[in-house]
Amino acid sequence: MTQRIRLLVEYDGRPFYGWQRQEGQPSVQGALESAAEALDGKPVFVQGAGRTDAGVHATGQVAHLDLTKPRPIRKVADALNYHLRPDPIAVLTAEDVTEDFHARFSATGRAYRYIIQVRRAHLTFDKGLIWRVPVPLDVRKMQEAADHLIGEHDFSTFRDAQCQAKSPVKTLDTLNVSAYGDRIEVTTTARSFLHRQVRSIVGSLVEVGRGMQEPGWVKDILEARDRAACGPVAPADGLYLERVMYDGDA
Amino acid sequence: MTQRIRLLVEYDGRPFYGWQRQEGQPSVQGALESAAEALDGKPVFVQGAGRTDAGVHATGQVAHLDLTKPRPIRKVADALNYHLRPDPIAVLTAEDVTEDFHARFSATGRAYRYIIQVRRAHLTFDKGLIWRVPVPLDVRKMQEAADHLIGEHDFSTFRDAQCQAKSPVKTLDTLNVSAYGDRIEVTTTARSFLHRQVRSIVGSLVEVGRGMQEPGWVKDILEARDRAACGPVAPADGLYLERVMYDGDA
Repeated sequence: MTQRIRLLVEYDGRPFYGWQRQEGQPSVQGALESAAEALDGKPVFVQGAGRTDAGVHATGQVAHLDLTKPRPIRKVADALNYHLRPDPIAVLTAEDVTEDFHARFSATGRAYRYIIQVRRAHLTFDKGLIWRVPVPLDVRKMQEAADHLIGEHDFSTFRDAQCQAKSPVKTLDTLNVSAYGDRIEVTTTARSFLHRQVRSIVGSLVEVGRGMQEPGWVKDILEARDRAACGPVAPADGLYLERVMYDGDA
Repeated sequence: MTQRIRLLVEYDGRPFYGWQRQEGQPSVQGALESAAEALDGKPVFVQGAGRTDAGVHATGQVAHLDLTKPRPIRKVADALNYHLRPDPIAVLTAEDVTEDFHARFSATGRAYRYIIQVRRAHLTFDKGLIWRVPVPLDVRKMQEAADHLIGEHDFSTFRDAQCQAKSPVKTLDTLNVSAYGDRIEVTTTARSFLHRQVRSIVGSLVEVGRGMQEPGWVKDILEARDRAACGPVAPADGLYLERVMYDGDA
């Protein structure tokens, strides 16, 4: 009888080759699995809700794992964090769940945030944590462009060539562009996303924001259903997996 | 005829041994002077408003320098930043000033911000950029303690042994403790501060916040005028020089 545990995980993606374990490269999954193995004494598989790319961050990744030696749940987060340090990965909460909970397949929604800073000077504190754009952006036009993408569409244009999803059809529930001074944040929610979909969308919205394209262009490239029509893909730096939703959560 | 230039400078203090140039050690002043020398072709002295300690950050340090080869001011920030990269120091603005402007001696006030995060897990994105305190803090009691320090006092208790100021008497104009969720920020303004005064104050306020001392204890240790009475000094991590004030500024 194993103990299934659900984790809420935060990480700074800068030093990692992404979520997924890769032989000989630092990964978030690999670091969590090593920490869990140190705890359990046996190899442990850690299942994440989303496989974030190299350099992409998470403030609210969800994962599950099974321990063969049951432990008091209130000590699990501290114990995993003890083994994770000094890696910039932190288990924020750990809770017991039933065996039918699956971090990936039980998820009913994902929320991402993309942070852009409009500024001429290079970054100091936030290098690798936000996308610096050195020219002004028209946020109103970016939102106008974004509105064309909300709802169910064939997102072939905004899908990486490596994407393994069976269908390019996805439903964006929300896609909001907000300005906080010189900081512009794009937030979006959907049941699930295609590979690089958020970065592809943000890159195209920035083309509109900087005046290279009109908002209607985003509708045109969406309807083209052609990867070649997409604007430049935004860098990993500004992207955060912020939340994963499950039935029954508050 | 030299060209005096006022700079607004931001830096991440983590990799530096403080503002002040030191032989063989990375410093903010040293990096700015190297960049200015690359621009001017001669050694340039850069005068800062405040000498921040090792690991202390700035979002609004002010400095001045004199160039022997006058240049169009609108290109100076970009040119300095070109030479500063990839160091986490950025010149945000550069403006021509008259020769009577002195970054340190003309300053009429300084504003610092100290950022604390209440959280059990180790830090990820913000390691070295905030002070993590793993226990709850009573913000109301911290403000009650802080109120004893506002105004003109002999701050001998809150002054580092190395402090070179002639007098321990300073006037704190403001000292506010604010909570934003689990983040607690202490902001303070004064004409000038003693060496490690802000970190000494914050360290003692946190003793009150975590319940080790009552708010009135801060009044007692202030009146003791004795460095030995001070609580633990808060780490450099959470401290930011946020603003330097001058007559005539907006």
